[in-house]
Order: sequence, then structure tokens, then C-alpha cells
Amino acid sequence: MNIEKYQVTGGKKFKLDDFDAKDRGGFESSADVDEIIARNIKEISELQSKLYAEGKTAILIIFQAMDAAGKDSAIKHVMSGINPQGVDVYSFKQPSAEELSHDYLWRAVKVLPARGKIAIFNRSYYEDVLIGKVHKLYEKQNLPDKLKGKDTISKRYKQISGFEEYLWENGIVTVKFFLHLSKGTQRKRFLERIDKKDKNWKFSPSDLQEREYWDEYREAYETAIEKTATEKNPWYIVPADKKWYTRTVISEVLLHTMKKINPEYPTISEEQTKALEESRKKLIEES
Amino acid sequence: MNIEKYQVTGGKKFKLDDFDAKDRGGFESSADVDEIIARNIKEISELQSKLYAEGKTAILIIFQAMDAAGKDSAIKHVMSGINPQGVDVYSFKQPSAEELSHDYLWRAVKVLPARGKIAIFNRSYYEDVLIGKVHKLYEKQNLPDKLKGKDTISKRYKQISGFEEYLWENGIVTVKFFLHLSKGTQRKRFLERIDKKDKNWKFSPSDLQEREYWDEYREAYETAIEKTATEKNPWYIVPADKKWYTRTVISEVLLHTMKKINPEYPTISEEQTKALEESRKKLIEES
Repeated sequence: MNIEKYQVTGGKKFKLDDFDAKDRGGFESSADVDEIIARNIKEISELQSKLYAEGKTAILIIFQAMDAAGKDSAIKHVMSGINPQGVDVYSFKQPSAEELSHDYLWRAVKVLPARGKIAIFNRSYYEDVLIGKVHKLYEKQNLPDKLKGKDTISKRYKQISGFEEYLWENGIVTVKFFLHLSKGTQRKRFLERIDKKDKNWKFSPSDLQEREYWDEYREAYETAIEKTATEKNPWYIVPADKKWYTRTVISEVLLHTMKKINPEYPTISEEQTKALEESRKKLIEES
Repeated sequence: MNIEKYQVTGGKKFKLDDFDAKDRGGFESSADVDEIIARNIKEISELQSKLYAEGKTAILIIFQAMDAAGKDSAIKHVMSGINPQGVDVYSFKQPSAEELSHDYLWRAVKVLPARGKIAIFNRSYYEDVLIGKVHKLYEKQNLPDKLKGKDTISKRYKQISGFEEYLWENGIVTVKFFLHLSKGTQRKRFLERIDKKDKNWKFSPSDLQEREYWDEYREAYETAIEKTATEKNPWYIVPADKKWYTRTVISEVLLHTMKKINPEYPTISEEQTKALEESRKKLIEES
């Protein structure tokens, strides 16, 4: 798969209209991709073992999207099958009082991945330039007055880019997924949630309230993506109207990212080899 | 499978000699159990979705064992396939300076599972009555002098039992696995590690030093298990000489534990049902 068509690396105007939420890469149904996804997961899993063993690079995977775009289900289906010892998933919900008493990156910094590990952020600090922008949340927060204003959000784009560049320079690779859902498909999925007994607890009438801000959110995503996409830390605009295709693209991008990192099992020094030789001798003499 | 034969619930003398590390439950090879394990993992995965949705009970899974008993590999093989969003794995290594400046349960308490989640402890606070006992580590720690002494360890058994009872009373179910490895199989696995290029980085000559304390560790495990096994929070003595059988037993015990918890998807109130009705109407009228 040519993942470049979904990749945004910044430096030019970005329009969501140029991306098709309904794109399914020419495939007909999930049956066409099941094998591709399974093969990708197997390769990702092998590379993850090496990443963990090597313990040098970490990967931060960010999932952002409108409601019902399939974040949870993508995490479940693409990341199950990977050793959970090397993967941590964090869901960023409405910030707690303690979190609000800190700068907005604080709660994310606390759970950054250790070297060799993969952290998945289900939502992230990007919420502070998404819902934070749409509902001007910073106005109600305890920022010093002189820091509240029209340019709060545009400063945050720069802060986030700077933060992610810092991470990259310290061995933490950030991969950002925007699951691109059409408004019609969100409607369809909301109706499904309401109608299914084992899913209706997931639906809240407040989801509909946010849907009324669809255009504002869309604009906020568009700007945030344009301002924070870079060569090193690109965004991927993943078609989300077909869940099976969403998973296909995500697994392709992850595999691509990990191949680029190219982790290797540690090799041991000559001195260590000698120590192992001695250990072997001791063990053999035991019997 | 009758998992009761591996279960220790306390209240009587416990002898590791009564358990056979070589036990393979009558199976010949991994081919005989692959399907059983896959089926168990599928069921565990479904129950995990419910546990997470319900958000009432949490599960704390503790893995303790001698080196090379297969803790990492059991976690990888049994827990891959479960949604990583609901599972967190913590490896307890040598405590940091900050951790040592706290009571020994502190670092574990910080990462207890939230309601609906599963936490896996790869080693745990039990280390403080295992290596802590064998090497009398508490003597070198900054405990008040009057609290250092012969009864430090026996007090810890009671503290741990009390702690786990507290957890149980607060909806956190603790399941404790001791992977029971024979000394001969440890030797075999150490030699394999030394000889395999992609595994030899895992081996440290200090592993051999600890092997010299085999009998002391065995005694420490025996006593710790006897003193902390209860009806509510049992230990399971899992035969560990055949990795495929270790995984079989672990998957059976987890499935059994989760079935007993019997989580259900949340049901919604009449009021919520009405709100959903209204949301449905709004969505339908949209088009």
C-alpha cells in the first residue's frame, strides 16, 4: 500500500476535502484485507519484540477523531496480538481538577513511553486545541489573564510542534492518526449504538450536542493538523467510514514506522561473551 | 480442566513437593492444547470487554517465579489477544532510590488497576518477602532500627494478606501465579539462552549467582505462599517445565476467575432510555 497518500508532513495548506472518508483503497470488503492485517500485525509484533529488547527508541501513537470514528475499535483490533508488556494505552478524558491545576501537557508527559515501549494515546493533548478551541475552554481555566486570548491556541500549535520535536530528538517517535469520518457515517453509527442493547450504554445525549459543532471541529482539526504535521512527526488522515479499511491503513502505517526505526536485538560485547562462556561451563559442570 | 489441583487457599501447611513442575496434565505436546488456549483467550477477551464496560471490578494478576520460569512468555502468549486498552503490565525491577524512600507497597499501590481494568504485575511486592528475605535486604534499607529484625518478614506476610483483603473488599480481585520450575529445567533454559544469538542478551552472570540460592528461594516461596494464600485471593502453583502447559493452566485460571466475577454490559435506566429515544428522533429528523 502506498501510505504516502494518507500522510501529511506539513509546510503547505492542508484541506480535509482533499481526503475521502469513504476511501476503501479499492477493496470490496473486510474479507479482502483480513489476511493483510493479520500479516502486518505479525510483523509489527516481531518488530515490537526487538524494539523492547533494544530499549532505545519509543513510539507514541496518537489517535484523534470525531466521536464514533472507531478509535477504540482500531486500538482493539490492531493492537491486540502485540505483547501487552510493551504497549500502554492511555485514554485522555475530561481533565481532573489536579490535571487542570497543571499546564496542559503535564498529564501527557507523565505517561510518555519508556525507551523500547509503545504508548497509545486515545485522545491526547491535541484536545486542548480541538475541544479547547471549539469551546474556548482556556477562558475558564486558571491561566494568568495576560495569557488568555485570541492567540492562546495558535501558541499551542507551536508549543505542541516544539514538544514533539523535543521528543523526536530524544528518541521518541510520534505517529498521529486522524480517523477521518463523514458526518453521514457518524449519524449511522450513533443510530446503531442507540439501537444495540450491548452498545447503548456507550451513547450519551451530549454526543449529539457536540455533533452540532461538526463544522467547528472540522475546522479545528484542519488547522491543528496543518500546524503540527512535520516530516519527522507526520499526521495520517485515515479513511474511517469503513472500519476494516481504517485498520488496514493503521497497520500499514505502524509497520512502515517500525521498519524505519529498524530495531535490533542487542549484541553483546566480547567481555560479555567471555562471561557467558564461563556461565555455560559452570552450568555444564553442575551435572 | 480441574484447576483446583493447582489452587492454594491457605489455612494449612503448604509444601511445594506436593506439586510437580513436570506435570503436563496428560497432554503430549503443545499441539494438544493450542486450540484450548485459543478458545480460552477468546472467552477471556469477551469477558474483558464486559469487565471494562461495567467498570466495577478490577483484576490484579501477579506473576512470581524463579528466573527462566516463563513469566514474560506467559504474559505475551496468554495476554496478547486481549484488548490492550483494558490491560496494563508492570514489571517490578530493582527498586529506584525514590521507591526505596517509600514503604515497600507504595510503588505497587501507584499502579493498581482502575475499575474495569486488568493489571499484570511481572514480579510484585512479593519480592520484598522473597529476594528481600533471602538477602535480608531490609537490613540495608532506611527503616527505623526498631523495625528491622527477625520478624520484619513475618510481619510483611500479614501486611500483604491485609492489603489484598482490603483490595478484595474494594472490588479488586487478586490472582497470584507461582510458575513452578524444576532446577533442572532452569539449567536447560539458561543454557539455551546462552547459546541463542537473539536471547543471550537476556542472560546475566548474576542469574547464576541467584541460582546458588535455589533452596533459600524455594523456602521463601513456600512460606510466602502458605502465609498469603486465602479463599478470596488464592495462589496457583502452575507447572512450568513445559511452557505450553503453563499457558494452558494460566488461561484456564483466568477464565475461571473472570467467569466468577461475571461482568455484564451496563443496562440503562428508564430515564436514559427516554433520552436515547429523543436522540434517535433527532438523528432521524436530520435527513
